[in-house]
Amino acid sequence: MSKTPYKIYLTEEEMPKVWYNLKAVMKELPPPMLNPGTLKPITAEELKQVFCDELVSQELNTTDQYIEIPEALRNFYRMFRPSPLVRAYCLEAMLDTPAEIYYKFEGTNTSGSHKLNSAAAQVYYAKQQGITSLTTETGAGQWGTALAMACAYYGIDLQVFMVKISAEQKPYRKTVIETYGGKVIPSPSNTTEAGRKILAEDPETTGSLGCAISEALEVAMKTENCRYVLGSVLDHVLLHQSIIGLETKYACEKYGIEPDLIIGCAGGGSNFGGLIAPFMGAKINGKADIHFIAVEPASCPSLTRGRYAYDFGDTGQTTPLIKMYTLGSGFIPSPNHAGGLRYHGMSSIVSKLYHDKYLEARAVEQTKVFEAATTFARCEGILPAPESAHALAVAMDEALQCKESGEKKTILFGLTGTGYFDLAAYRDYNEDKMTDYIPTDDDLARGFATLPKVD
Amino acid sequence: MSKTPYKIYLTEEEMPKVWYNLKAVMKELPPPMLNPGTLKPITAEELKQVFCDELVSQELNTTDQYIEIPEALRNFYRMFRPSPLVRAYCLEAMLDTPAEIYYKFEGTNTSGSHKLNSAAAQVYYAKQQGITSLTTETGAGQWGTALAMACAYYGIDLQVFMVKISAEQKPYRKTVIETYGGKVIPSPSNTTEAGRKILAEDPETTGSLGCAISEALEVAMKTENCRYVLGSVLDHVLLHQSIIGLETKYACEKYGIEPDLIIGCAGGGSNFGGLIAPFMGAKINGKADIHFIAVEPASCPSLTRGRYAYDFGDTGQTTPLIKMYTLGSGFIPSPNHAGGLRYHGMSSIVSKLYHDKYLEARAVEQTKVFEAATTFARCEGILPAPESAHALAVAMDEALQCKESGEKKTILFGLTGTGYFDLAAYRDYNEDKMTDYIPTDDDLARGFATLPKVD
Repeated sequence: MSKTPYKIYLTEEEMPKVWYNLKAVMKELPPPMLNPGTLKPITAEELKQVFCDELVSQELNTTDQYIEIPEALRNFYRMFRPSPLVRAYCLEAMLDTPAEIYYKFEGTNTSGSHKLNSAAAQVYYAKQQGITSLTTETGAGQWGTALAMACAYYGIDLQVFMVKISAEQKPYRKTVIETYGGKVIPSPSNTTEAGRKILAEDPETTGSLGCAISEALEVAMKTENCRYVLGSVLDHVLLHQSIIGLETKYACEKYGIEPDLIIGCAGGGSNFGGLIAPFMGAKINGKADIHFIAVEPASCPSLTRGRYAYDFGDTGQTTPLIKMYTLGSGFIPSPNHAGGLRYHGMSSIVSKLYHDKYLEARAVEQTKVFEAATTFARCEGILPAPESAHALAVAMDEALQCKESGEKKTILFGLTGTGYFDLAAYRDYNEDKMTDYIPTDDDLARGFATLPKVD
Repeated sequence: MSKTPYKIYLTEEEMPKVWYNLKAVMKELPPPMLNPGTLKPITAEELKQVFCDELVSQELNTTDQYIEIPEALRNFYRMFRPSPLVRAYCLEAMLDTPAEIYYKFEGTNTSGSHKLNSAAAQVYYAKQQGITSLTTETGAGQWGTALAMACAYYGIDLQVFMVKISAEQKPYRKTVIETYGGKVIPSPSNTTEAGRKILAEDPETTGSLGCAISEALEVAMKTENCRYVLGSVLDHVLLHQSIIGLETKYACEKYGIEPDLIIGCAGGGSNFGGLIAPFMGAKINGKADIHFIAVEPASCPSLTRGRYAYDFGDTGQTTPLIKMYTLGSGFIPSPNHAGGLRYHGMSSIVSKLYHDKYLEARAVEQTKVFEAATTFARCEGILPAPESAHALAVAMDEALQCKESGEKKTILFGLTGTGYFDLAAYRDYNEDKMTDYIPTDDDLARGFATLPKVD
């Protein structure tokens, strides 16, 4: 049988031994991060106060196209990688499309998403450096879970500042993190100055990601042998996620699959950036003709309606300034069930590629996303995370366009995770209680008003 | 590198094309099911009123060692099979044992367990027979989810009678089933005579599996082109689950793994019976020397403290009589978080093999089970279902015994599923709120008093 298998599993020996550094291939680099006080490019020394040394080196590396994945870290990766590249035979049949549809599925590990690729790497380097504890923030909870798994594996203490409303709405996420030994602190908390200040001003606050970041940063700065880790946006996180794209590209080459279209959801941009990395490199070098689409929620449209400007990474305005497509750090995303895509900005690499017209961006409304997710679950068996289903919705659109036009395109999308912890959202959709939110121009203007003046 | 990989994935071409019928190999057959009215062996015609024709043939087949898996069904299996056989390198290192530990992991599909193996087969045969709707009951919800997935794939209507207390305690299980298009009816309901009768007697009842079975059976009998399906206990369910054992055996042979010990959890016995089937066949034929251990909860000890007797399969006492190890259909299992193991009886095949001393049984208390589950999650990354963790707990015991004795045994256990929907139980464990329940001799006597008089 010469038919492509349903699931292409590379062997563990075929798993990439390097990451792909897209910045070493780009014709023009993204502008550097700036120190918000001096407006000068941030230095490695400044970054090392917060992040592990090796991660800072990776963050600033613009020359090495390939960066080795240490052998010991590859042993951890072998517990959940290579992940499958799946041919969506049943979805193709259901849509009655001449297109071939493939998806790279990152949801086969307990954290339920691609986040573990970077969590494993970041905790590995922390361990190497003799760091004994880490702090982070989490909203939807996928990052917190992945990090707790990695910290359990390497024996490192973890404090997760979880937005209070999320901790209350998703008690089971908290339980998973605790089962892996992580300490979950609903934020704002009494354990930090930042938290106490916010609670004094508003004892009833349900918290925000900005506040959780401030608390996590404060603990990292004040605790010996402690560092802060972040699950998206930054260049080193995209670097780690490039293992998704490398595996995908190798599987495609092995089976003679030539994608015309690669689609991913984009929140902070790490999964999308990782998936496209080696394909984009080939495109930049004129070796491939692939169309890339980043899909974001219509409720938080940083690429499709944002500005390309220097902005803070957090709502507390404490981080270095990053040149990116942004809605302004003060933009308040309206309620949307894809918590992982509810971020005001976008990776500077993805932003630069978008600005230079190497990729397209589309915004999708959430009812359409859940319609696609439900269809997919019923024919392909996997219950997608709402985030992942953004990419799926556009992949299905494109497959239906092929049906119209008769084109036999090869469509590949990233299915970043599973929706086991998003069932309240599925219930709303099933019961017809889900609505769409699209920010008005006034909403956007209020967000843009919070952009710092840099130039 | 000649080291066994972390995860052994067979190719889709290597996936078994047949099931393994253990009854064709057994030296002595389990006694036949009896009609509870006449006490005569049940006939195919009687069974066909409730079950699909082909499933009845499989149920009664005692001669064909191999039964073909239809090509079209194998295409469905390819969406989630072959499942991985994993070498627990990290668990071995953590336990510092000379033993090799392997687990066959059935939790990689959205239903989260092995149940989909039989759900897919049963719905396939229903479709072949022109059946347009199915009914079933579900307690913990894994079976209901698996069946909803299979019904979505084949386009068959499904009504799931879900024990009312479970539907309330596990609302997300209900949501998953509904997302796959299944209709969930909390039981007892007003939709059946049986349900209305029970509600009239006790409007506040929280339901029971016995009642849910009665309602599902009633609808199946009264509805045109409708049949009832069951997720465990019966011989045809064990037959379908033998794909677990066949894949495991083939993977072992391919990599030169010779298990000394095979361990599985046992509720109704279908996963355990399926995992051991071809290995037990080899043992019966004198071709392998393997020790088998069925693990059950101390709170519901049908093998270790039950009687080998004819009994009803349901608490409503409506099914045919099955010769099995049982605590009596009226036995009320004390609360235990492994809902899938909270059943009074045991597969007649597993019971007969146990009676004839081909296997050992052990009972484990739930705090010990969750201790093992948490340890496993932290070093192997997978969050196990409480049911599966019963097998894990005994595998860890055996590995530690090897450490004592210095023996280099090869231990293999079945990891039947994931614990994403059992986080309330994990939370209880994390917060030290979990207690153990062991039935007293008086509790058992009350159960045994409900056994029917047959001889």
